[in-house]
Amino acid sequence: MVHTMSLVHDDLPCMDDDDLRRGKPTCHVVYGEPIAVLTGDALLSLSFHHMARVDSYPPDIDADKHPARVVRAIGELARCIGSEGLVAGQVVDLEMTGSSETVPLDRLEYIHLHKTAALLEASVVIGAILGGGSDEQIERLRKYARSIGLLFQVVDDILDVTKSSEELGKTAGKDLASDKTTYPKLLGLEKSREFAEKLLSDAREQLLGFDQEKAAPLLHLANYIAYRQN
Amino acid sequence: MVHTMSLVHDDLPCMDDDDLRRGKPTCHVVYGEPIAVLTGDALLSLSFHHMARVDSYPPDIDADKHPARVVRAIGELARCIGSEGLVAGQVVDLEMTGSSETVPLDRLEYIHLHKTAALLEASVVIGAILGGGSDEQIERLRKYARSIGLLFQVVDDILDVTKSSEELGKTAGKDLASDKTTYPKLLGLEKSREFAEKLLSDAREQLLGFDQEKAAPLLHLANYIAYRQN
Repeated sequence: MVHTMSLVHDDLPCMDDDDLRRGKPTCHVVYGEPIAVLTGDALLSLSFHHMARVDSYPPDIDADKHPARVVRAIGELARCIGSEGLVAGQVVDLEMTGSSETVPLDRLEYIHLHKTAALLEASVVIGAILGGGSDEQIERLRKYARSIGLLFQVVDDILDVTKSSEELGKTAGKDLASDKTTYPKLLGLEKSREFAEKLLSDAREQLLGFDQEKAAPLLHLANYIAYRQN
Repeated sequence: MVHTMSLVHDDLPCMDDDDLRRGKPTCHVVYGEPIAVLTGDALLSLSFHHMARVDSYPPDIDADKHPARVVRAIGELARCIGSEGLVAGQVVDLEMTGSSETVPLDRLEYIHLHKTAALLEASVVIGAILGGGSDEQIERLRKYARSIGLLFQVVDDILDVTKSSEELGKTAGKDLASDKTTYPKLLGLEKSREFAEKLLSDAREQLLGFDQEKAAPLLHLANYIAYRQN
């Protein structure tokens, strides 16, 4: 199977199915670190550029009539990425990696809430803002997103110890092999499953106040994340 | 003299005046590359977060009454930083560095317009947008900013070959020593000075249509950049 990047860069090696199962090489491996760093800066800027253009939005959002919503949505994205969001999670993760001590539970949750849940939070909350949600609705959906974000990681950790590589479509048991701190390691498998159930129920609860037909995709997403098998 | 960072990090060495003249160590030297990359991402996000907050603006801007201007200003910043701005200039600069051939004039101008002038462009144009400038006024100020941005680099190159280290407050002649492509190298000193004069006159011309009292700080800035001695 041909690596998509090899379509534009002739000198890239083609990848076979085994390569793909192991994952594609990251940008810094293929293009070098300086270009990878600049690509990150460019993509980060592009996301804000995109959000600042009225024609980026579907017509029913009426972005040109609601610039204050667009400003608020941009602020939300910036907060979820920056030193209160993704970056904060990555910094704490970096500090923990290479440390010999086990990551305590609150630190593990901090990392996942900031590294994973923050981007789900931004996605959900931005939709709520642009859709004209009230402050209370926006905060409910924020809690929903944080719950499913954390749920995603807990389920990921559980699948890593309960499924075979074939079922996962990626190498199973690698968390254990790499000595990574996971929920099953800290809580045990049973308590991890209970925690996942609680997060799912928290997420569902936040959706109760909404029109159930409109909330159906979010409910489905929460269930999908909770019950996925790979 | 104490390095400001040593106030928060005890393990950082103090710097004396000689260190300061040579410049402070960059972030990646002090904190390592991963943290430096994340700091860049955090600061980039912070700039958009800042711009999306109404209380970031002076009261006379009335940012809360003009959210469409704020959106446009954010888009301008994003464009000037991203793959059409700063990042583009840095990528071309990287490609040229390490190449044995002399950088051609149009490439040198491309690098300076994108690496240096783009940030001046964003600063000036964002002011014009938030101040309620017309499209024509905004475009005039954009041209002004690009001219003084390029002027800054041309003057920098001229000073490097005409001034002593003591006059500059930094090492003179280091462009020549490092085999860096400069305007004096490509055009000669006399033609470089003529080019600087032309850029200054272009910049001044763009300010003619404005209230001269209000435009005075921009005129002063252009003159300062043109006639600075270090």
